Amino acid sequence: MKNSKRPSRRQLLKMGAAAVGGGLLAQPKALAAESPGKLGIPLGPYGERSPYEKAVRWRRDTKTPETGSSFSPLQDSVGTLTPSSLHYERHHAGIPFIDPAQHRLVIHGMVDRPLSLAVADIKRLPSITRIMVLECGGNSGSEWTAITGPDVQRSYGLVSCSEWTGVSLSLLLKEVGVKPDASWVIAEGADACRMERSVPLAKALDDALIAYGQNGEALRPAQGYPLRLLLPGWEGNTNVKWLHSLKLTDQAYMARDETAKYSDLMPDGKARIFTYRMEAKSVITFPSGGQKLPGTGLYELTGLAWSGSGRIERVEITTDGGKSWVAAKLHEPRLPIAFTRFRLPWRFDGREAVIASRATDETGYVQPTREELIAVRGTNSGYHFNGMKFWKIQTDGTVRNVEV
Amino acid sequence: MKNSKRPSRRQLLKMGAAAVGGGLLAQPKALAAESPGKLGIPLGPYGERSPYEKAVRWRRDTKTPETGSSFSPLQDSVGTLTPSSLHYERHHAGIPFIDPAQHRLVIHGMVDRPLSLAVADIKRLPSITRIMVLECGGNSGSEWTAITGPDVQRSYGLVSCSEWTGVSLSLLLKEVGVKPDASWVIAEGADACRMERSVPLAKALDDALIAYGQNGEALRPAQGYPLRLLLPGWEGNTNVKWLHSLKLTDQAYMARDETAKYSDLMPDGKARIFTYRMEAKSVITFPSGGQKLPGTGLYELTGLAWSGSGRIERVEITTDGGKSWVAAKLHEPRLPIAFTRFRLPWRFDGREAVIASRATDETGYVQPTREELIAVRGTNSGYHFNGMKFWKIQTDGTVRNVEV
Repeated sequence: MKNSKRPSRRQLLKMGAAAVGGGLLAQPKALAAESPGKLGIPLGPYGERSPYEKAVRWRRDTKTPETGSSFSPLQDSVGTLTPSSLHYERHHAGIPFIDPAQHRLVIHGMVDRPLSLAVADIKRLPSITRIMVLECGGNSGSEWTAITGPDVQRSYGLVSCSEWTGVSLSLLLKEVGVKPDASWVIAEGADACRMERSVPLAKALDDALIAYGQNGEALRPAQGYPLRLLLPGWEGNTNVKWLHSLKLTDQAYMARDETAKYSDLMPDGKARIFTYRMEAKSVITFPSGGQKLPGTGLYELTGLAWSGSGRIERVEITTDGGKSWVAAKLHEPRLPIAFTRFRLPWRFDGREAVIASRATDETGYVQPTREELIAVRGTNSGYHFNGMKFWKIQTDGTVRNVEV
Repeated sequence: MKNSKRPSRRQLLKMGAAAVGGGLLAQPKALAAESPGKLGIPLGPYGERSPYEKAVRWRRDTKTPETGSSFSPLQDSVGTLTPSSLHYERHHAGIPFIDPAQHRLVIHGMVDRPLSLAVADIKRLPSITRIMVLECGGNSGSEWTAITGPDVQRSYGLVSCSEWTGVSLSLLLKEVGVKPDASWVIAEGADACRMERSVPLAKALDDALIAYGQNGEALRPAQGYPLRLLLPGWEGNTNVKWLHSLKLTDQAYMARDETAKYSDLMPDGKARIFTYRMEAKSVITFPSGGQKLPGTGLYELTGLAWSGSGRIERVEITTDGGKSWVAAKLHEPRLPIAFTRFRLPWRFDGREAVIASRATDETGYVQPTREELIAVRGTNSGYHFNGMKFWKIQTDGTVRNVEV
């Protein structure tokens, strides 16, 4: 037992006996149930997931399924990327069916040389790839008041992370020659409602992308195929899908989605508008509401953290309702404005536990409690909630969404 | 014209006038062909790609499609990840249809405490996520002699890159208590042929993973659902899919796929076996064989580089058949044993050009020419080809696979 290749039983106990302790074999060769010798399925052109995998986006039943949100199943997430098929959706007039050969991006308004670009023109230009999170400005909106989301999907699921590829918008703006008095870019989508948002020129010239690729292939239709505006760190709604027009102006458009919607009505009755940046946030995805731990023993607590301001610097976890906090292990590399997976071994001893995570980003910003948020912003607004999320693990192992 | 926001026309010329020059608008508001006001497709549970996207894996027509290879469409790749649906395949007896609730991983042989683990047991343990390339040991095998692959898919397409999530194999080996005399791990899949490979214990204890996650969801069936052995940097065949048995032994198994196959028959008639590591390699994916440049002007040359030994340090590109080389821009972060996308602006002036890329990894290893490889290894073997790939761009813009 002194040989370093023969670790003692303590190692098993350290890791979580319950997880594997039931697995000791009477017959070591008792293998899986697959029939030996039965030939499998042939090689295929475009693969599918296993029929045993059931994770799907969730949306409310409605008579107008073309408008609304569908939530990513964060409770089933592994790693740091969201499968394109499960990326959250937020549409205002459905997903347009666009032939990329017919689609054009027009850049016009206060420019010297207006341009109409085919998708093929854009793909020919110098390209950029980055892994980046997108979060709906209304994600976790239910947490402001009712705290009704029974699970992490329905409460925090309007956030996803993909690898995006496209062209720097600043490159295109150099091509058209922005006039000196221009200060805004009005981005318009080709969906039925022609959704529009006003983007300050400074952001457009900084790190904005015109994306045509997602997770190694073309953008998915639900994510803006064939072209999407990406504004790193800014609320999802400003990342205009099915992008077909960028108009340079000297004033904001004051569109519906930046005045009536996606603005923050404060306790004094005044509204904050153009609150674009999504601040640091995190949530534990396992264990989370609706799940049940199969017994006592060791588990890995895990979840996701992100910040519209840059890298995640630290994630702390409480298992006693916020009295004490310990640092979780962070997945590396920690990319700016991307999901950072965090992990912490934890032993469930059968006593009630109240767990939550708290993210700090590279600017030093610390994710607030719900109470701290409400103290400043009140509860008139349903947007930009980034408070901590507490889950209660009950003595029988069931996990619930609770207000703490 | 002195305002920094009003770059001169030189910028356009620098970037490639032909790419966008045809797009100047007579009517700036001539937008895309989408009908305004037509309501789109509703929100959905599990998304699909656009019907306009046609990229698929390619395989030879055969009467036994359960065995063979299907090649990833690298010519359509963007960024650094391969969509799970397009990850290359190499199966020996088809894809088994496995119910994860019935599947077990047995660790036995020269161990103190044999274990049979359910998938759920494994998912409960401390997890690891890494982006990692997988390459078939036979990738580019046709380049040794015939150079028959007409495009990058059929010549270099047995390589793909995913984000994988799983458990460290060393953790499981600590649990079972490896006996002091054990030196090999025999990994066996649950496919019909029970494919087996021998893995040195040192590798198993170093960085091997038991993966259950791929690109944010469960492994795809074609990639080993529900469990796959991952050996970072080692030929694809050793990364045993549908993993159901790990047996500790004091000798290699000398399985079919490490003796008759996946070994390198040298010019002197002796075979190198257990040549696991895939060395540094790169290939230009655009422009590549079978494509056609639509005209002269500026383009972005781009492709993928990877190494089984670690990070890519440098990629150089030639456009004159190897006489001169210039450094390409590398996507950051450069992750070890992962795709690194490289990019270089290049002007096609209508004259014939012969292009290739050459990768250097962090160990200082430089991707060889085909001739350098053959001088050492001869042409008896069809495995482990990592020579440079030359494409000829003809005066009309068509691109061909040529021997240079």
